[in-house]
Parts: sequence; structure tokens; C-alpha cells
Amino acid sequence: MSTISISATLAGLCLLLLSPTICSSSKILVVPLDGSHWLNMEVILKELHSRGHDITVLRSPQSWYIPKNSSIYTSIDVLMLEERDRDYYNKLVQDTMQCRRYPTFIRSFCNRHVITSMFTQGHDVLARSAASMFDNTVFMKKLQDAKFDLMLTDPGLTTGVLLGGYLKLPMVFNARWINSGDGHFTIAPSPVSYVPVSVSELTDQMDFVERTKNMLHYIQAVVEQYFIINPSYSELFKRHFPPGTDLLSLQHSADIWLLRADFVFEFPRPTMPNVVYIGGFQCKEAKPLPADLEAFVQSSGEHGVVIMSVGTLVSALSEEVTEAIAAAFAQLPQKVIWRFEGEKPSSLGNNTLVVKWLPQKDLLGHPKTRAFVAHGGTNGVYEAIYHGVPVLGLPLFFDQFDNLFRLKARGAAQMVEPQSLTKENFLEALTDVIETPSYRENIKRLSKLHRDRPVSPMDTAIFWIEYVIRNKGAAHLKSAGFSLPWYSYFCLDVVAFILALTGTFIWAFVFMCRILCCRRSRRKTKAE
Amino acid sequence: MSTISISATLAGLCLLLLSPTICSSSKILVVPLDGSHWLNMEVILKELHSRGHDITVLRSPQSWYIPKNSSIYTSIDVLMLEERDRDYYNKLVQDTMQCRRYPTFIRSFCNRHVITSMFTQGHDVLARSAASMFDNTVFMKKLQDAKFDLMLTDPGLTTGVLLGGYLKLPMVFNARWINSGDGHFTIAPSPVSYVPVSVSELTDQMDFVERTKNMLHYIQAVVEQYFIINPSYSELFKRHFPPGTDLLSLQHSADIWLLRADFVFEFPRPTMPNVVYIGGFQCKEAKPLPADLEAFVQSSGEHGVVIMSVGTLVSALSEEVTEAIAAAFAQLPQKVIWRFEGEKPSSLGNNTLVVKWLPQKDLLGHPKTRAFVAHGGTNGVYEAIYHGVPVLGLPLFFDQFDNLFRLKARGAAQMVEPQSLTKENFLEALTDVIETPSYRENIKRLSKLHRDRPVSPMDTAIFWIEYVIRNKGAAHLKSAGFSLPWYSYFCLDVVAFILALTGTFIWAFVFMCRILCCRRSRRKTKAE
Repeated sequence: MSTISISATLAGLCLLLLSPTICSSSKILVVPLDGSHWLNMEVILKELHSRGHDITVLRSPQSWYIPKNSSIYTSIDVLMLEERDRDYYNKLVQDTMQCRRYPTFIRSFCNRHVITSMFTQGHDVLARSAASMFDNTVFMKKLQDAKFDLMLTDPGLTTGVLLGGYLKLPMVFNARWINSGDGHFTIAPSPVSYVPVSVSELTDQMDFVERTKNMLHYIQAVVEQYFIINPSYSELFKRHFPPGTDLLSLQHSADIWLLRADFVFEFPRPTMPNVVYIGGFQCKEAKPLPADLEAFVQSSGEHGVVIMSVGTLVSALSEEVTEAIAAAFAQLPQKVIWRFEGEKPSSLGNNTLVVKWLPQKDLLGHPKTRAFVAHGGTNGVYEAIYHGVPVLGLPLFFDQFDNLFRLKARGAAQMVEPQSLTKENFLEALTDVIETPSYRENIKRLSKLHRDRPVSPMDTAIFWIEYVIRNKGAAHLKSAGFSLPWYSYFCLDVVAFILALTGTFIWAFVFMCRILCCRRSRRKTKAE
Repeated sequence: MSTISISATLAGLCLLLLSPTICSSSKILVVPLDGSHWLNMEVILKELHSRGHDITVLRSPQSWYIPKNSSIYTSIDVLMLEERDRDYYNKLVQDTMQCRRYPTFIRSFCNRHVITSMFTQGHDVLARSAASMFDNTVFMKKLQDAKFDLMLTDPGLTTGVLLGGYLKLPMVFNARWINSGDGHFTIAPSPVSYVPVSVSELTDQMDFVERTKNMLHYIQAVVEQYFIINPSYSELFKRHFPPGTDLLSLQHSADIWLLRADFVFEFPRPTMPNVVYIGGFQCKEAKPLPADLEAFVQSSGEHGVVIMSVGTLVSALSEEVTEAIAAAFAQLPQKVIWRFEGEKPSSLGNNTLVVKWLPQKDLLGHPKTRAFVAHGGTNGVYEAIYHGVPVLGLPLFFDQFDNLFRLKARGAAQMVEPQSLTKENFLEALTDVIETPSYRENIKRLSKLHRDRPVSPMDTAIFWIEYVIRNKGAAHLKSAGFSLPWYSYFCLDVVAFILALTGTFIWAFVFMCRILCCRRSRRKTKAE
């Protein structure tokens, strides 16, 4: 554990021990998003529970990740999203891979289209289930009577946003990023010239063509927000909310946005004062490995080990791809630990241990770990940064391309896209990541910067959640710009008015000049 | 001392005690701005000195506030600004008061004009003195050989910015705000629709007319920056810097901006990740008063005391105004402590103690203090917020109108402008501030919010200064937008291209339709 890390952790400990205790018995209503997002939320809930808060979690009856029974919260079952099985996500991965066959300029738009299709279906279901929840007056009365002090939700799932707005609760968002819609009207101004739109696979350094691409992505995102996502909820808003309410207006009523982002990874972008960065808040120092795994790791000798995991999408890679990966692994001097489900590849080498689950954080923090083969999910990326392990990325879906692209732009990762993966190019890229010192040096530098902050991201998150409870919101940190119509926000009305006024003056001036000239020339003519 | 305040202070103490000690012997070059800005810088320097840093301060030989000899720093005398006496500032106050006689819409533009005139003179002198400093090769060699780790400067004085850029040092700015120039290219996007331009006397809630006014102020500020301030330095840049360098490009090379702002006072606005808010960092709990002053304060009984100070501009009020103020004070049941220079007003009451200097922070923190009559300088405003004392503002000059306007918008202050001050309206406003509970309630609420932060503003400032030293800059927190030309920053080139392309497509479509229609009608005619 580095000096900086010890400092931040101990300072955070001091901060939390000394924090005002006035919210020790607050009632927090939590609407988490399922899947890997839940893993993030759960870490925060554990911390809130340990600080004496009373937590109620809304979950879908057949939730994939969120347990019904827990020692840290009370759960309430509510139909939210139709549960998706792995096949659904595997299909999305396949669709995304089809997109990757298009030319570079086009493929990100195709990616976005796949996501939009998923969102469109999702929002329809979310709107219908929220409507049936609001219609259930007994249930809503129960929620109202519970007198919660706070709504803590992931805005990736709109149920929490809608419910928080309906119950008029102070709201804290635990959000990944602005995945869709209009950053201008939720987080802060997002100049298209240097803020790459999500899924665009661009950096903050763009030439003219890239800025044009980014602008088209921005237009696509805005069209999605206003013409696809918002209309899904129009009936719901008409029936249950005051006129003029829409999804964006509820989103920008959030008191604090806890963004799972950090600028060692994300490109610097503007934000409003109610946006707090907590990227990597789930990371912890590594715990010792189970004895058998430790023995396997130690058997790697000086070469060390390579870890591979594609998270939730563990079964999304085709047999052809896994065979190529296995064959490449077999040629490495390193040992490999691979999180894998399904039939083992025939080309698997003796150096490769295939497991159904692995203690990812603890393995990444092991001094013998040389590289991390990952799909580029946000959690894994931050864990790699925290522990300073270079990454070979196999992006499958959604923001994973963007995530790995960012890490690659920092010189801390290589990428091989599954649809063009062969044994040779995978082996070459992996050997490059392991043997070229710059990858390790760069991610170690990112790790040092990431850990160098006044308060740890987790303590920051807890501070701001309790801040909102203590102060019943954070109205003074919210942008006044969000309440303006778009043309006023961008001052187009003012610009039009000033231009019209200037135009009129110029016209009047020219008109006067002409009259004067005509008179003079008439006089001249007369004189002649 | 409230629980929250104790928490933040102790947490900060923990943070600083535990912070990495790798910068304990760093060499910091400081170029402070004189006057009240120095008071701010000095507080930080004391803290840095106590943490073992080696500090060198550049000062003007006849500096007004900055001592030549100090136990916390070594000073170097360099001609920077021609020293101004109080008469100079009193003249500016008089000019500003002339402006206040204009209609509301116009007076702020006139105010800005007064400031611009001051700036124009100042920048000419600064550019000339910087040029002569850069020409002094022996002196510059000495500075270069000193191998400083950091330039800490107030960008209100350009000397530090120029020198930091010339010596290629990591830079931390200790800045009040974006007083002039283009916030878009220094701090972050500054949408004119809800970010009131400095000196505009607007809030973040603007109607169409106010937004037009703000836009005109923005244009005025940009014209100032590019056509008045920048040209002062063009010769200097040509001779001593690489092509393309200007004042803005040096300003946006700052690694961290420590902004003396806090959102209990300022309106929420976007900022980049390298902007850190430290408003009120100079505030401390009150120390006991000297015995005679304490006796005077205690003699006020249940009515309490009123404090009046107009800071550095202590002699700027006309005799007519001070007579009216003294007469109004005489009618109060409160006792009054007034920082005053010159001949005592004849109407002075027995309840008023006139002093040449007063322990402002300690008086504001005294439980018997009922109101603070102040000119609205930033330091005084934050001290009033910190101690929760309502304010009656007498704005004299520059940003003081804006400062008091903000406090008034929060319901924590009243304002009387000196040029229209009478005994009656001053007494009425002061009685209102003292007797109407909402002023005290509002400023107490601001005080509570201001003190409720994870780390105290002073500890935050020290953390980020040492962060820049430790990491030799903070490049990953700086906006990529600043390197773009303005038309690319605002994507005007991209918008023009997309519009042209769309236009061409529409034209081609219409053209094709016409051809097809013509052919059809020709065929029809033929068939007939």
C-alpha cells in the first residue's frame, strides 16, 4: 500500500469518524440497476448500513444479481424491467460484432443503433411498469407514509428517477456517465469540440473529421433522447406529473450526481458543482488468495500470471474465438487464470487454469500479475488502474469500446476486437502488453495519480449522500441553465435579436447614406 | 464551533498530517497581487511555510501591503506595477459613483468601462516591466538556476503568469474569479444564458432582457481581452515566447486554479476538473477581543453591536455620506464599531466607537454582533458568511456591486449605494437588516452549508498545491478545448459543413424532382 493511498484512506477514516452523526438513522430508498451496476451500488449500501442508515431496496422479482434477502437492507419486489437472460445480451454482443465489420467512421453509429434498440424496448417496459406502480395507490401510500429521507438510484434505470420525482424526495444518483441523451441538460455544458459523445470512440483531441463525427453522434443522441426515449414516458407524465415534466427535468432535479468516473481515465470535461467524481470507489487493497490459487500463481515463477475475465458476458465469445485465445495462451511463458463457462477449448495449454469464478480484485493486486485480458467493463478497468495492471482489451458491447479506447489512449492498454481476433494477433498484442515496459509504467503512473486525492472516492460518496440528507437537498449546487428552453440555453433568441438590431441599424445607416447621396447628386445635376 | 466545522477541521488536520511528505522541501516561487489579494496569499504562504516549503516572493519595491522582510519567505524586489496611492483608488470610486447615476441597464457597462481603463493602464505597465525583467539575463539566469518546483501566483497580476510560462514551471493560480476576458478559454464553458459575466450585476436567473444585457457584457469582456489587454503584451510575446503564445494560452496552462469562490455565495457554474473551490479559506474561529473592545461590546447589552468597515477603501466615502451614516448610527439602540480614517463626523453619536483598525474576523465571530456594514470586498463577504452575520452593503467599486448583489439575492444582505445614501434610507435599511429575522436566518443557513464540506477550504488549497509539486503538474485535468481556435471550439466549422452538406443534398433532391417533373409534363404534353 503506497504512502499516498494510506494517507487518503486514513484521512477518509478520520473524516467519516468525525462526520456529523445527525443522519445516523436516516431512511434511504434505493432503486438500483441490475447486473454489474448492482455490484457498485451494493458496496455503497454496505458502507451506508455500517453507518446506521435504514435501507430499503426496490428490486425486480426475478432479479439476476440483487438478492431478495439481505442483512443490510429490506427489499420490496416491484416489476420493473422484464428480466433478460444471458442469451439476450449475447445476441446484443453478436449484433455489435456485426457493426464492427463496417468502416471505422460508420461502425460507432451502428453500435449506437444497437444500444438505442435495446433502450427503446427497455424504456417502454419501464414506463409501463412505473405507470402500474403509480396506479397502485395502496403501494404508493405505503411508500409515502414511510417518509424516506433520500432516493439513491442509478439513473440508468428510470424507475428510481420517476419515483424520486413523484415522492419529491431529495435525490442522489450513482451514475456511470451520460450514456445517452443530452449532457448539456443533465450534467453540464458538453462542448462537442472536445467532449466525445458516449460510444463515439473518440478522444478529447479531435481533428475536423472527428469533430464532425462527434457532432453527428451528438445529434443522434439528442434525437434518441427527445424522439425515442422521452415519448415512451409521455402518457405516464400526463397522468401522474405536473405539466412540463419530462425525464430530463426529473434527471436534472437530482441533488448530487455521484459519477463513477475519474480523470486519470476519462477525458477532462466540464461539470456543475453538484457532480462528484467517485470513479474506482469500489477498489480495495488485495486480500490473500485461496491456498490453491496462490500455489498456482506462485508456480508461474518469474514470468508471472495473466488474468482473463469478460465479466457478466462470460459466455459471449464464440467457440472460434475462445479456441484462438486458448491456443495463444498455450504459447505464453506465463501462467494464465481464465474465467470461463461452457465446454473447454481443445487447444487449452497446461499453463492455463480455467475457473468459473475468480477473485478478480485480489488477483489484480497480486505482485505476480503481469496483464489483464478484459472486456473493458468500467469496474474491471478501474480495478486494473487501481492495481496498476496493463490491459489487453476484448471489447464486446456498449461503452466497452470507449473504455478500452481511453485506456489505450493513455498508453496503458492494447485492443483486439473479437470479430477479427486470430491466435496470431491476440498472441502478438498480449506479448506486447506483457513485454513492452511502457504499458506497465503508464498504468502505474495512472494508478499513482488515481490514488492521490484528498479523500478516497468511497468516503467522498458517503459524505455527499449524507450531505444531501443533512441539508434536505443541495439546491444551491444545481445549474439554473436546466430550466431554460434549449434556444434560450444556447442564447439563440438573444443572438437573433442582437443580429436583427445590428442589421436594422446598418440598413438604416445605408438608407440614410443613399438618401444623402441622391440629394447631393441631384443638387450636382441641377447645378450643372 | 459547530459539529460540522469541527469535523471538517479535524478531518483536514488528519489529511494534512497524513499527507505524503515528499514535497516537504519544495521550492515555491510566489508572485502575489498587492492589496487585499495579498492578505489571501499570505494565509496560504504561512501554511506552506509551516509545512516546510521554501518560499520566494517577488514584490514591488514600494509595495503597499507585502513586507520586504518576513520570517516565512525570502523576497526579491522587482518593478511590476507603478504603486498606486489611496487617492488613485478614491478617484476610481468617484468615477464608479458617477456611473451609478445612469439608468440600471447602462450603469454596469459604465462600471466595466472604469475598470477597463484601469486595466489598460495596468497591463501596459506590467508588459513593460516584464519585458525589462526578461531582458535582465543575469536575473533570469538566477531564477532559472534556483530550480523552483512551482509558480504560485494570483493571475490578477500577469507578471506571475508570464514568468511561470517563461520558466516552464508547473503553475497554481490563487484567483478571485474570471474578472475579465473569456471564461470559455480559461476556466470552462460559461454559457451566457445562466453564467452572469463579472460586473454585470445579474444573477443566474435571467429573463430575455437580462440575457441580452449579459451577452453585451460578454462581448464587452471579449473585446477587452482580445483588443485591449492582449495587444499590450504582443511585443513581449514576440520577443520572449514561442509563436502563438498569448496571455490566454499561458493562463490556460495553469495546472490548478484555486478559486476563492463557494457556491453558497456564487451562482453554480460549470468548471473543469482542474478548478478547485477554496472560497472562505482565510476564515477562522474568532479569538477573544482586546479587553477594552470586549468591554465596549458587552456594554451594548441585549441590543448588541454593529460593525462597519470598508476595508482598504477606508477613506473613499465623501464627508456628506459619512455624516449621514454617523447620524443614522446615533439613532440605533445598538453600539457601533466603525473603522474610520480622517476627521470624525460631527453627527457622531455616543454609541459609536471610531477606530483606525479593528479585528474584523474576531468581531464578526462575537455573539453580540448583529450586523456588518461593509463595502462588499470578497474577504469581508466570506467572513460574514462564515460567522453568519447579515450585511448592509455600501458598494464602492469593481466586483463589490456583484458581491453584494449575490448576498442580497440569497436574502442575507441589503444594499444602499453611497451616491444615493441619506441618513433616512441608511437607517431604514440597517434597521431592516438588524430586526427582520430572515436576514440572520438566511446567512446562518449559508454559514452552515459553507462549513459543511469534506475537507476545509484551506486544507483543500494546500493539498492541491502539493499535488502539483508531487506530480510535476496536473496535465490530465486540463481541458483539451483550450487549444482549439474559437470557431472550432464552438464547432462553427462543423456546423457550417453539415449545413452546407445538407443544403447540397436538398438542392440536389429538388433539382432531380424538377427534372423528373419536367420530363413527365413534357411526356404528358406530347401525349396530348
